[in-house]
Amino acid sequence: MSPIRVAVLGAGTVGGQVVRLLREQSAELTARIGAPLELVGVAVRRPQRHTDIPADLLTTDAAALVAREDVDIVVEVIGGITPTKDLLLTALRRGAGVVTANKALLAEEGPELYEAADASGADLYFEAAVAGAIPLIRPLRESLAGDRISRIMGIVNGTTNYILSAMTATGDSYEYALKEATRLGYAEADPTADVDGFDAAAKAAILASLGFHTRVGAADVHREGISGVSAADIAAATEIGCVVKLLAICERVGGDATGAGASVSARVHPVMLPKSHPLAGVDGAYNAVYVEAESAGRLMFYGPGAGGAPTASAVLGDLVAVARNRVAGGHGPRESAYADLPIQPMGEVPARYHISLDVHDRAGVLAEVANAFADAGVSISTVRQEGTGRDAELVVVTHSAPDAALAGTVTRLSELDVVHRVTSVMRVMGEQ
Amino acid sequence: MSPIRVAVLGAGTVGGQVVRLLREQSAELTARIGAPLELVGVAVRRPQRHTDIPADLLTTDAAALVAREDVDIVVEVIGGITPTKDLLLTALRRGAGVVTANKALLAEEGPELYEAADASGADLYFEAAVAGAIPLIRPLRESLAGDRISRIMGIVNGTTNYILSAMTATGDSYEYALKEATRLGYAEADPTADVDGFDAAAKAAILASLGFHTRVGAADVHREGISGVSAADIAAATEIGCVVKLLAICERVGGDATGAGASVSARVHPVMLPKSHPLAGVDGAYNAVYVEAESAGRLMFYGPGAGGAPTASAVLGDLVAVARNRVAGGHGPRESAYADLPIQPMGEVPARYHISLDVHDRAGVLAEVANAFADAGVSISTVRQEGTGRDAELVVVTHSAPDAALAGTVTRLSELDVVHRVTSVMRVMGEQ
Repeated sequence: MSPIRVAVLGAGTVGGQVVRLLREQSAELTARIGAPLELVGVAVRRPQRHTDIPADLLTTDAAALVAREDVDIVVEVIGGITPTKDLLLTALRRGAGVVTANKALLAEEGPELYEAADASGADLYFEAAVAGAIPLIRPLRESLAGDRISRIMGIVNGTTNYILSAMTATGDSYEYALKEATRLGYAEADPTADVDGFDAAAKAAILASLGFHTRVGAADVHREGISGVSAADIAAATEIGCVVKLLAICERVGGDATGAGASVSARVHPVMLPKSHPLAGVDGAYNAVYVEAESAGRLMFYGPGAGGAPTASAVLGDLVAVARNRVAGGHGPRESAYADLPIQPMGEVPARYHISLDVHDRAGVLAEVANAFADAGVSISTVRQEGTGRDAELVVVTHSAPDAALAGTVTRLSELDVVHRVTSVMRVMGEQ
Repeated sequence: MSPIRVAVLGAGTVGGQVVRLLREQSAELTARIGAPLELVGVAVRRPQRHTDIPADLLTTDAAALVAREDVDIVVEVIGGITPTKDLLLTALRRGAGVVTANKALLAEEGPELYEAADASGADLYFEAAVAGAIPLIRPLRESLAGDRISRIMGIVNGTTNYILSAMTATGDSYEYALKEATRLGYAEADPTADVDGFDAAAKAAILASLGFHTRVGAADVHREGISGVSAADIAAATEIGCVVKLLAICERVGGDATGAGASVSARVHPVMLPKSHPLAGVDGAYNAVYVEAESAGRLMFYGPGAGGAPTASAVLGDLVAVARNRVAGGHGPRESAYADLPIQPMGEVPARYHISLDVHDRAGVLAEVANAFADAGVSISTVRQEGTGRDAELVVVTHSAPDAALAGTVTRLSELDVVHRVTSVMRVMGEQ
């Protein structure tokens, strides 16, 4: 049986594990594929740093490696858009399979990659791009391919989940929790991609695309990070039996029984989630994704969402799949974007808000506040008044209303004379 | 594009849903497959009962239906071994793909089906055979194909989980809880397959086979059901912060770093599980499976484990996959049994026992009991004495020891003069 030849781009946290496992477990992988896997090259920036990899495998010329006609599969774990996109396009166009963990590239340039893959008949696999080792891409692309998914909702960023869990456990401020997370290695030196929700938004775009058979790009995802989450928000959530989580939420909304006329909402923002919700107990750096489908009902997938070894596990699973496809002479699933649903603007997404207000404690305050809601057509679910005098606080939880109406109401409230300050605003999960 | 022709065997709870969805969602399925699906026949015993299915699709001659040369894929949801096995072999031998939900058949006759599939190049898919709509077969066969699985542990039978959850919530006896479950439709009129663990054992065989690349049949699985679980057992579990669950446990034990010299343990029995364990909170008719792998770490899959619609979702996902393989000209994963590990006998499996004893309350009792453990080489973790006089009870939790030594100790204890009765014996999950 002629070997399947593999090139790896990158030998960092994930790539290093991939290369190690490929070399250590080649007998097992061969048995599982039905043909030997042969590692023919590893592209890195600084070869001298990788003393654990045989020197003759290392190269700094990634472009030449992906263009080699004898390379059957390219594994990409360097990340970034440039020059990664061109490297993968080169591989796909000449028919080499690609296994990538690059969520940003897929969320920004997925259609171009898919088209190159489909044109040449090459495989494009990316289980590692979302939620590390948790099988999620394959279940969405394949297991649920005969079902109608209505919602995908998940904790898909370990750094922000770690920070929010720590804030909940200790009552610490966001700034302190972030500093601790950085010190312990849970946050990167520049945490922007995580804390501002870019990472989660890229994953939401990928999940929504697969779940709803529609091209959803990173720019289609409404994105709010966690840097605005205060200790007061966390305390307010605890007060109503909730925890604060940064969720990626993808929904199919509206449409008739056949799905016609539906649209897609994809968004990332902090949410107050009832403690009874299965996602509420997912703490620390773990990831979990909740999927609702018409026939399957409610499914949950849970596990380590990042890290070298878990991500390498996902990469190797894909590598075995692509190699098996080559042995069998077929190919894996193609892009499925036939539904081509429109994106629902964030302003139209139904939401419930939890709003805390510092107010004057005098007669008529509640009436003025209630009027501001009524004027915007927003119905109030509960109002709670705490403290008196200068410390009086009103806590309002709304019924469901379009997000734009809710956001507008918050602006109006902040302009009222009787309101000193809007101290906390957050969406609350749950129907009502 | 020429259509993919599908025959369905059975139109009961699952088959009825499959046929309905195939007819209602054919446009979506066609878009996802890249070729139209055409339902060409449904084999049933009593056609007159299926007025919702066009009469010209119905047939009582399943053997003729699976032998039709124009049938590309056979969906089997009738269950049983005879004549089902021969029907599927007929289909596979002439190259038709098979999608089945038949756990018993796979656990008993899997190798013969696989061999027929491999010989003709046909696909054999069975996501619906374990844990309903929860994607589990595909993750084990594909997503984790590049990893080394060390343990699969799950609640895979909804009926027994419903009964145990009810007993825990109410304190009711097993007999009463079973009667209620039957009345509410959670247990069948003849509940043997569920309560005696046959169903879970078949699933354990399938999971162990996939996870450890070894043929594991139903007869290789040590099986204990829940009919011996008493209200006293449930109360004893609560006392030590545990819940009682019927678990299917598949482990790779022993062996060196490369896995050489390892063996496989597959078993189904009730367990006292600490409430902090992720599986402990899985209540009612839900299923959940926990997978530990060397690189991936700990993963959990959760969802509805049975029912017409969820099982139909799994069947249709497989149907789309097999149809896509036909369009692409390849095939899905084959049997992977290269590791061929031996089965570890139950007597050698390390376990911890929780044992409650009614004893005489007099000096020397503890010494006699302790001697019985010591003689068998079983080390005691904790002893608790409750009550006095005739009601005195000793509760012993052991350290880990081979199951045969523990079972032998229980027999010896029951023969001691100072022991009136062994009131509860159950394995406890957790290392110590």
